[in-house]
Amino acid sequence: MGTEKLVIGIDYGTDSVRAVVVNTENGKEEASAVSYYPRWAQGLYCEPTANQFRQHPLDYIEGLESAVKGALGKLPSGAGERVVGIGIDTTGSTPCAVDQEGQPLALRDEFKDNPNAMFILWKDHTAVQETEEINHLARTWGGPDYTKYEGGIYSSEWFWAKITHVYRQDPEVKAAAYSWVELCDWLPALLCGVKAASDIKRSRCAAGHKAMWHQEWGGLPDEEFLLRLDPSLKGLRERLYTETYTLDQKAGELSQEWAERLGLKPGIAVAVGGFDAHMGAVGGGVTEATLVKIMGTSTCDIMVASYEEIGSKLIKGICGQVDGSVIPGMIGLEAGQSAYGDVYAWFREILAWPLKKLLQESALLTEELKEQLFTELRSKIFPALTEEAQQLPVEPNGVLALDWLNGRRTPDADQNLRGAIAGLTLGTTPGRIFRALVEATAFGAKAIVDRFIAEGVHIEQIIAMGGIAKKNPFVMQVTADVLNMPIKVVHSEQACALGAAMFGAVAAGVYASVHEAQGKMGSGFSATFQPNPEQAKVYEELYQNYLKLGKFVEDNLRAL
Amino acid sequence: MGTEKLVIGIDYGTDSVRAVVVNTENGKEEASAVSYYPRWAQGLYCEPTANQFRQHPLDYIEGLESAVKGALGKLPSGAGERVVGIGIDTTGSTPCAVDQEGQPLALRDEFKDNPNAMFILWKDHTAVQETEEINHLARTWGGPDYTKYEGGIYSSEWFWAKITHVYRQDPEVKAAAYSWVELCDWLPALLCGVKAASDIKRSRCAAGHKAMWHQEWGGLPDEEFLLRLDPSLKGLRERLYTETYTLDQKAGELSQEWAERLGLKPGIAVAVGGFDAHMGAVGGGVTEATLVKIMGTSTCDIMVASYEEIGSKLIKGICGQVDGSVIPGMIGLEAGQSAYGDVYAWFREILAWPLKKLLQESALLTEELKEQLFTELRSKIFPALTEEAQQLPVEPNGVLALDWLNGRRTPDADQNLRGAIAGLTLGTTPGRIFRALVEATAFGAKAIVDRFIAEGVHIEQIIAMGGIAKKNPFVMQVTADVLNMPIKVVHSEQACALGAAMFGAVAAGVYASVHEAQGKMGSGFSATFQPNPEQAKVYEELYQNYLKLGKFVEDNLRAL
Repeated sequence: MGTEKLVIGIDYGTDSVRAVVVNTENGKEEASAVSYYPRWAQGLYCEPTANQFRQHPLDYIEGLESAVKGALGKLPSGAGERVVGIGIDTTGSTPCAVDQEGQPLALRDEFKDNPNAMFILWKDHTAVQETEEINHLARTWGGPDYTKYEGGIYSSEWFWAKITHVYRQDPEVKAAAYSWVELCDWLPALLCGVKAASDIKRSRCAAGHKAMWHQEWGGLPDEEFLLRLDPSLKGLRERLYTETYTLDQKAGELSQEWAERLGLKPGIAVAVGGFDAHMGAVGGGVTEATLVKIMGTSTCDIMVASYEEIGSKLIKGICGQVDGSVIPGMIGLEAGQSAYGDVYAWFREILAWPLKKLLQESALLTEELKEQLFTELRSKIFPALTEEAQQLPVEPNGVLALDWLNGRRTPDADQNLRGAIAGLTLGTTPGRIFRALVEATAFGAKAIVDRFIAEGVHIEQIIAMGGIAKKNPFVMQVTADVLNMPIKVVHSEQACALGAAMFGAVAAGVYASVHEAQGKMGSGFSATFQPNPEQAKVYEELYQNYLKLGKFVEDNLRAL
Repeated sequence: MGTEKLVIGIDYGTDSVRAVVVNTENGKEEASAVSYYPRWAQGLYCEPTANQFRQHPLDYIEGLESAVKGALGKLPSGAGERVVGIGIDTTGSTPCAVDQEGQPLALRDEFKDNPNAMFILWKDHTAVQETEEINHLARTWGGPDYTKYEGGIYSSEWFWAKITHVYRQDPEVKAAAYSWVELCDWLPALLCGVKAASDIKRSRCAAGHKAMWHQEWGGLPDEEFLLRLDPSLKGLRERLYTETYTLDQKAGELSQEWAERLGLKPGIAVAVGGFDAHMGAVGGGVTEATLVKIMGTSTCDIMVASYEEIGSKLIKGICGQVDGSVIPGMIGLEAGQSAYGDVYAWFREILAWPLKKLLQESALLTEELKEQLFTELRSKIFPALTEEAQQLPVEPNGVLALDWLNGRRTPDADQNLRGAIAGLTLGTTPGRIFRALVEATAFGAKAIVDRFIAEGVHIEQIIAMGGIAKKNPFVMQVTADVLNMPIKVVHSEQACALGAAMFGAVAAGVYASVHEAQGKMGSGFSATFQPNPEQAKVYEELYQNYLKLGKFVEDNLRAL
């Protein structure tokens, strides 16, 4: 191991936190370690049937120490001395009520078991009612429509909806809450020993994409708007923030206390925190005319565009456009599909139903053998479906599916839409249905690309990362064929942490810009899927049918 | 056992022939026996992938002897002496080329292994091309549209399409064929020792519903029409038939030879043969304002209407309207759904796929245990789906299916239509899909009932028979709710054979009319499903969505 400067990228996912020690010279991932959140793993503070998902700050604090020390421990001693910067990405919007010192309320004894005093995880959907009110109010209150840079539709997963919901539910938390933080803002402040809520540097990405912050109206939504939403929000706005910071800036310097806990030097740079998808896009090499797709159970689609390209345009129906949210000096654009891998997983579970339900009732096998058999057979469903599906030809008048099984996020968010499978015959096999579902998710991807293009945002290629991108070449090839664009798969398995490390390197002054850091530290690509022009032509026709099927569902079969 | 007169109803199904000895006084089924076709069971003469399904006449002959003797053998000796008549129903259209003696060509040595010299089973779809030509010709040739009493669309399952196809494929069969018979016409002739093709009595039901025979144009289609279809048909028309007979008439009297072979008295009446669905409808109690649904893998829907009710109307989009095809003196109306139980079976096989495919590859179990487990689990899929589905509420904006997985037979036959399942979410379970499929088949039933009513044919109740009717109360209740009509399930498990026995009794002079025979010999009903008015109201709304989904598939997703 050499003497090059190191940075640590810390990636807070839904279940665990991962620390990756990265060489600033070449982006090599020298060591990494993961730590699972212990309270979360036990299901504490959550009520899945009510869509309540909360995380205790101690899970994050303990995980931070364990992951960073775990990663450094894999390197020769003295490696900690060479670390010059830290970058952190997290899920979001994952807000938490804090006291005047900027401390999450759940860290105080009286709130230590109160889920409303904890971080409200991105996928918590308890604030549906408040979300409807926000959307209604934004369109009718007479002032600016504060959702306009967030695609025109506020989500129940976001900042203000969650705060309002907690305030209505829990007077004690409301009384004790001085301000609120996003997880990505709180963690750098924690590492830097920030002692006042008002000193926490807020990231542009969380503020702009989730909290309706925008330069146009001088920051967060007007107090009057918030009071109309709920009088209990009175005074909160001025205790939040006006300024926001791009991710390449320093949130502060590592405190003596945390330097000791982690085995690092005090005073090293800690970058402003950001969301996983945004930092992942940077780690994956996002640049102009490139859509980065983070493809897992759902997708998060990130782009950057120049001021010239966007001008004063409002890109219709996407999830947000924020100056500097991804890369300083560019407009960050966010979109996404509500379900990608989840669509396939749904079908796998449909097929696994006889195994789950009927196998358990059989008297033919021992309990142990049933469990083994279930695990084995269930694990083989995807490979077998894929094998069958990829041998099938594209079928111009065959099975056609619609991927909206979890509603539609982009374009034009609508949670009340549903999926469909049409063109079925008595001869339709599971492999054919699976192929149609894969094609449907790819059509969903195309709908986003087409929307960007229709709105004047140029796209030439796709960069992909995430579980689907790394593990499912069949899905990737179909997606490339449907999009009729090359898709490059990021080599790094940890593009989010790598992106966070890049921001750490820029904040530490190792590189002058994100672009320079990307050039030196980028992982490159492990595969490129080139579109097959023949298939692309057939898919172009099928896509018209997909749009028609979508229109039919929109017009006739929406829930509620 | 008493001294009452007996009749034998003989029901030729797709896989087997069943003989039922019925007491003419009360309709009691005194004994019955089944014989499976041995060559058919081995898959001989068929090519399922090419949709070629042929049956050897020896299968029928051997089965006849075995079934009748088997049934009589279960009764005290002397029972054969008390049999006064025989009625026979068969599948159809199931035609075969015969020589001048009326003998199927496959019974001659030189043709004994030639599938084209055998009976072409109803479900043989080899004549798709010829069918298209017939339909095109009927609409364009300048003479009458000969399909008009068959719903306006000729099917590849029917008489002329099959003959033309064989003539084009097989010059030797063409050269040797003097005439053609339907299975239901040949069997009575066989029993009566008819020695000339021209002496075979042709049933009105096969002729009218499948061979475009009608009084309006003096019998079969004009020679010129047939020559335009294919010159090889030259001369066939005059070697076929002009006269047809209703099913209550005598085809002839049992020959000495067959009396000895079966253990019956020579000279007893053999009724004109007919199709299973038509005789089944009579056996089940068909009467005015009643739709008889024979519900199995698909449905066959039969009605009878008075001359006054029909007048000169052409009922649009059904499968045929023929004077006397079911009951003499009334118009027999035929409709049907291309798939009913087959829709559920399709879904069962989708769910069984991991068991079929993946279980076989597992090294965890012995081959024997795999087989046992597969059989057990597969057999439990339907009960488990039904249990789950019937606990689910009707969901006004939920999963909605379209039952056209085998195309649509009625209303408005269209084989190129396909099925669909819409309104899917990540939470959609197999039970919910199954419920939607059951509702879809019931909606398909409603579309037929609504068509009859729209065309001025009154319907007050449904009589149901067949496997689904007898075994699946959940499906039957949903169907009653969707139709908002009571459904009576025929008590007899063998309504077709019972209907054949009734015709045997009328032909023998035991009863003066079919109506009288029905009154004395009818089996009554084992259950009545009353519609639930609340459910019916919800279904009325869902049915509108079903129609919209159907319209969408018709307009956009048709095959070819």
